[in-house]
Amino acid sequence: MSKLHVVAEPGKQEIVLTRVFDAPRELVFRTYTDPSTISEWWGPRSMTTTVDRMEVRKGGVWRFVQRESNGTVHAHNGVYHEVTVGERLVNTYEYESFPGAVALVTTTFEDLPGGGTKFTEVTLYPSAEAREGVLQSGMTEGARELFDRLEAYMAGLQS
Amino acid sequence: MSKLHVVAEPGKQEIVLTRVFDAPRELVFRTYTDPSTISEWWGPRSMTTTVDRMEVRKGGVWRFVQRESNGTVHAHNGVYHEVTVGERLVNTYEYESFPGAVALVTTTFEDLPGGGTKFTEVTLYPSAEAREGVLQSGMTEGARELFDRLEAYMAGLQS
Repeated sequence: MSKLHVVAEPGKQEIVLTRVFDAPRELVFRTYTDPSTISEWWGPRSMTTTVDRMEVRKGGVWRFVQRESNGTVHAHNGVYHEVTVGERLVNTYEYESFPGAVALVTTTFEDLPGGGTKFTEVTLYPSAEAREGVLQSGMTEGARELFDRLEAYMAGLQS
Repeated sequence: MSKLHVVAEPGKQEIVLTRVFDAPRELVFRTYTDPSTISEWWGPRSMTTTVDRMEVRKGGVWRFVQRESNGTVHAHNGVYHEVTVGERLVNTYEYESFPGAVALVTTTFEDLPGGGTKFTEVTLYPSAEAREGVLQSGMTEGARELFDRLEAYMAGLQS
């Protein structure tokens, strides 16, 4: 029920991730946008993630740096176009190893009738090829682990 | 030669505008990113355009307000993801009368071998339907007038 769904429709340039969290919407939004929590859940367990910048407001810049145990560094950055507290984020996304391929990400947080939160992330890629590259890169598995970690982290906060 | 070309390929979510300007790249970039020039060329002659904000840097916010002679107001805003001076801009775009339909715009400025500048603007829409709506709205005619005004304004600077 609460696992990650990944949809990449043919003929579109977007990937849609949906996931149900067994946590109130306010908690999901707050955790998702709190720089002090990022290192606890953003990315796979095999890397350490540090927040270089994370200014959650219109025009704010975010930049996360991941380090593998062998020293390899992966950095990601973007800017926030919209921050509607508790409801919606719109931001850009760029993986610095592929500079210039900027994507647009819209994240929404919705109450579910029976409790819990529906999380939806739509990422719009600059081309169908860019989207294909991301799907081939193992993004689905990475996202699955990330959201599992986020769920576990929030469960810890609630217990 | 120097007129606007508009391409909206089937099966894609973007509109590509190209235009050649008879002006050096540095001048085109500088004019395009100078808040004090916007009211001289941005939008159609039938409206007055004022700059509410225009912070040309990563994370900078821009917002332009247009007024028709009958008092109708059109506002547009976004944030800059990338500003590479003289070469490239990446920013979001939102027309406030359709809030939430955020597009991603990549603008490049290139030297032409015989002189002059090739200007390319790729706007990525959140859906094929959103792109169709923009095309139906008379965007092409509006863009044509805007770029003609920009060319005329730069010609005045150079004469």
